[in-house]
Amino acid sequence: MCNNCDYTIHGRHHHFGWDNSFAPVERVAPGSTIEFECLDSSGGQLKPDSTVADVTALDFGKVNPVTGPIHVDGAEPGDALKITIEGFKPSGFGWTANIPGFGLLADDFKEPALNLWKYDATSLAPALYGRNARVPLKPFAGTIGNAPAEAGLHSVVPPRRMGGNLDIRDLAAGTTLYLPVEVAGALFSVGDTHAAQGDGEVCGTAIESQMNAVLTIDLVKDARLKMPRFTTPGPVTRHLDAKGYEVTTGVGPDLMTGAKEAVAQMVDLLAGQHGLDPVDAYMLCSVCGDLRISEIVDMPNWVVSFYFPRCVFE
Amino acid sequence: MCNNCDYTIHGRHHHFGWDNSFAPVERVAPGSTIEFECLDSSGGQLKPDSTVADVTALDFGKVNPVTGPIHVDGAEPGDALKITIEGFKPSGFGWTANIPGFGLLADDFKEPALNLWKYDATSLAPALYGRNARVPLKPFAGTIGNAPAEAGLHSVVPPRRMGGNLDIRDLAAGTTLYLPVEVAGALFSVGDTHAAQGDGEVCGTAIESQMNAVLTIDLVKDARLKMPRFTTPGPVTRHLDAKGYEVTTGVGPDLMTGAKEAVAQMVDLLAGQHGLDPVDAYMLCSVCGDLRISEIVDMPNWVVSFYFPRCVFE
Repeated sequence: MCNNCDYTIHGRHHHFGWDNSFAPVERVAPGSTIEFECLDSSGGQLKPDSTVADVTALDFGKVNPVTGPIHVDGAEPGDALKITIEGFKPSGFGWTANIPGFGLLADDFKEPALNLWKYDATSLAPALYGRNARVPLKPFAGTIGNAPAEAGLHSVVPPRRMGGNLDIRDLAAGTTLYLPVEVAGALFSVGDTHAAQGDGEVCGTAIESQMNAVLTIDLVKDARLKMPRFTTPGPVTRHLDAKGYEVTTGVGPDLMTGAKEAVAQMVDLLAGQHGLDPVDAYMLCSVCGDLRISEIVDMPNWVVSFYFPRCVFE
Repeated sequence: MCNNCDYTIHGRHHHFGWDNSFAPVERVAPGSTIEFECLDSSGGQLKPDSTVADVTALDFGKVNPVTGPIHVDGAEPGDALKITIEGFKPSGFGWTANIPGFGLLADDFKEPALNLWKYDATSLAPALYGRNARVPLKPFAGTIGNAPAEAGLHSVVPPRRMGGNLDIRDLAAGTTLYLPVEVAGALFSVGDTHAAQGDGEVCGTAIESQMNAVLTIDLVKDARLKMPRFTTPGPVTRHLDAKGYEVTTGVGPDLMTGAKEAVAQMVDLLAGQHGLDPVDAYMLCSVCGDLRISEIVDMPNWVVSFYFPRCVFE
């Protein structure tokens, strides 16, 4: 894939959680292009022959491995890494699960569920879900970040100001991401690759899929960046917006409650319109539906909207 | 404009706030197509010769007039109105204001500000802002709703389950909106028309602009709808996404704080990159930037992202 890469970071060089005492597996100059062999977020625990019992049996001490860390020469606290996302080499296999206790509607969906995906890694044609839903694909890395300044081991689950488990759907090929550096060398790692996800990742998982990521990593000195930011080279929804959207809303004084209400109503709508089991509709929402804040100023009630792309069924 | 309208509801038939004791100004059969003369959200208080002093002098007892109400024959509590948004007849004049005490960053922007817009009401070509920003237009009605079941006069400011000041950018021509009915006849009204707005309406105002709205109003019996929902006939961002986006993020355990951080960082970025006064960048964000929830499941930190369309400056 990467004929002009300066380095390859192999999948065996992965770690669980963030810790600035982890020794770098490579030292690179700014401007280097690097291929990372990323693992899927189950670290290989879920496979093409897995069943829902394997969701229950997941070892959470081994979820979300990230490949790295790499030390970027000259990076110091206050700088930013400028990461150009060159592309991905997807595997063609993926999984989506409802994991009890995890996800926006965890109180409604307490039983484990699993969907296994097979997709064309070359064409990236929309992937079949159930009998007649087809989900457009757009690979990206869910977890991408630098080591935190604070000593000790930190969970990989929550994203932080220097990145991590951001799960931002648009960190796809062509996007340039800027991440704050908190320690010397940045200690950058990446993993948790997804073949598709909607804004919100509402059931807690995307189309989780092993793939390699090729990144060019550069340095912006003294960037004084508070939080991650990124620039997309073009539109971000044209792979799925051609037929428009079905949209549900949650109106009220709390954004989290509004988000839950909007998604719960979309689950009901899709289950009713397409004869889906509610948990299957919920997982489908997670891989292709988008949470947007339509209105956040008309005190005391805000509007959170959930946009489901009609192309999935049309 | 509306050669096949069944009714015209004139602008003098407007009211302030929602009250199910307001007498209907017209009684219509389901399936009727109606032209509504909507007023702008200042009710004509802000004009092409207004200055920032007029923002300070605004009479808030006369903001957000809505045209109506109309009684829809046969509508009963538990039903939904199905509203097909046929189109708008914009006026070509608009305004955007920072109103002290109102808006997502009210704590940062305490002084009034006003921008007056002139746009081509026929071509709807992107409207000039400042020296070199051009904002794509997409007219819609910010306030569209039915009367509440609860007796008495209710503020027009907060949206509610039967609609109202939803400020949903995609309630544009071609969209079909479903609104819960809470009282006999629904008592539907509409107003607060906008020539453009981003998701969130972050400074509290859009391109506020008087225009007429043509709607076909139908009835879905026993719809048992909890909240408004809508269907868009096609893509919703193609008028502004061609060049991609600059995106800032807010990462943390509270969605409202994340939204504020994402917008504040975009204000800083645009002010720095384009030499804008921060309040002008803030108002620009409100009319064309979008708040999205990128991730809402990676406990305890969520990611709210603010998407600013690069076409505005490129």
